[in-house]
Amino acid sequence: MKYIESAKNAHIKQWKKLHTKKERTKTGLFLVEGKHLVEEALKSGVVKELMITTPDMLPADIEPDIELYELSEEAFTAMTETETPQQIAAVCTIPVFEEKKYERMLLLDAVQDPGNLGTLIRTADAAGLDAVILGDGTVDAFNGKTLRSAQGSHFHLPILKQTLQQTIPALKAQGISVYGSALKDAKEYRHIASEGPFALIVGNEGAGIDPEVLQMTDQNLYVPMYGQAESLNVAVAAAVLVYHLRG
Amino acid sequence: MKYIESAKNAHIKQWKKLHTKKERTKTGLFLVEGKHLVEEALKSGVVKELMITTPDMLPADIEPDIELYELSEEAFTAMTETETPQQIAAVCTIPVFEEKKYERMLLLDAVQDPGNLGTLIRTADAAGLDAVILGDGTVDAFNGKTLRSAQGSHFHLPILKQTLQQTIPALKAQGISVYGSALKDAKEYRHIASEGPFALIVGNEGAGIDPEVLQMTDQNLYVPMYGQAESLNVAVAAAVLVYHLRG
Repeated sequence: MKYIESAKNAHIKQWKKLHTKKERTKTGLFLVEGKHLVEEALKSGVVKELMITTPDMLPADIEPDIELYELSEEAFTAMTETETPQQIAAVCTIPVFEEKKYERMLLLDAVQDPGNLGTLIRTADAAGLDAVILGDGTVDAFNGKTLRSAQGSHFHLPILKQTLQQTIPALKAQGISVYGSALKDAKEYRHIASEGPFALIVGNEGAGIDPEVLQMTDQNLYVPMYGQAESLNVAVAAAVLVYHLRG
Repeated sequence: MKYIESAKNAHIKQWKKLHTKKERTKTGLFLVEGKHLVEEALKSGVVKELMITTPDMLPADIEPDIELYELSEEAFTAMTETETPQQIAAVCTIPVFEEKKYERMLLLDAVQDPGNLGTLIRTADAAGLDAVILGDGTVDAFNGKTLRSAQGSHFHLPILKQTLQQTIPALKAQGISVYGSALKDAKEYRHIASEGPFALIVGNEGAGIDPEVLQMTDQNLYVPMYGQAESLNVAVAAAVLVYHLRG
């Protein structure tokens, strides 16, 4: 195990850069912080480097090809972006998934908020979906806030980037029912039977789904607003719809 | 309309203090920022003071008893807590609600995250519930983050503070079905009929509902985990349950 004392160490500077999408795209790596996320990353075999502040933080049964670093508190704090540093972090490889046929999917059109994206990924995992598809304009999934709110679900199901205008016709050709979510010109979700493979699309927090995308679906659905709220949070709406559709 | 140039003006200092729970409790006031929240506050008649950065931000038909202030950009920025100040803000009276009988309620046991609380209030509003009850240990509802994530629902339904150990027996005595949410010793939510008045309890993000509270319910419910996620976000779980229970 290597020891790093200084916050100005070249490794620290390099790891810190992984908080930017640019660096993650360039290197194919991302950084997770905290015991729970590091454990999930270790289980899924994507960890390249592991950083701890005291030797007793070292998890058991670490694969021998993972590089280990002990960091001073100062060095660890310099690398981290959370306010209360978690004493353990890992550099992981962004998983690459083969294109295959999925039967239950969540498609996101320009979801902007990193916390919402994480909650959507966690919800898709909980509901047993096969994949989450990030359409154009959706925030990068491997930032710290999305990783934290997904609570490890990044390691449980494929997260793919696609252009929905191309994905939707391909899914329909495979016999998958494609549902959009919209407040207007849509059917109440409970009037749709829960059966067979499906893809549910939810959209941007402010603007909803791109009208061009909405026109390509088999059917658009809405969750009724019984009170005075104008809409539901996007992750909340997705959960209500997806738990209905999966039956 | 009074004009405030300096960020050090006594009004600015006073309004800024409303970002703290202590000051809100002492004064019975809270601060909302941004066009949408200010409009909702105006509609509900709770605005005492209105602050704008340019006269053209002034909404139409302002009640004559609302005090108006034009603030310099510097003074406005000093008062605000958002990164991109919204040019309009208002000081409002925290609504006080009479105790009355509600038929559909969401009860929160020690919900800690301000964003989650806001999403829960918004969801309760959307689902047409009559009230949200904040149990002991729940974060204050009138902080900026909760107000922003509730998107105006604070002005649509009563938000009450109560001790759940006292509330639950009172609700049961009124014939209201009280449901907890728990991962163990609970019934799958779809096996519960959607009928009659109900109160749904959701709990702390990490610990769930206090075991003492869980023992007092009529029935505890769970949302099935079909994938590898251990649980759902608290606002997501509440939405799935509440949309089922309200039928």
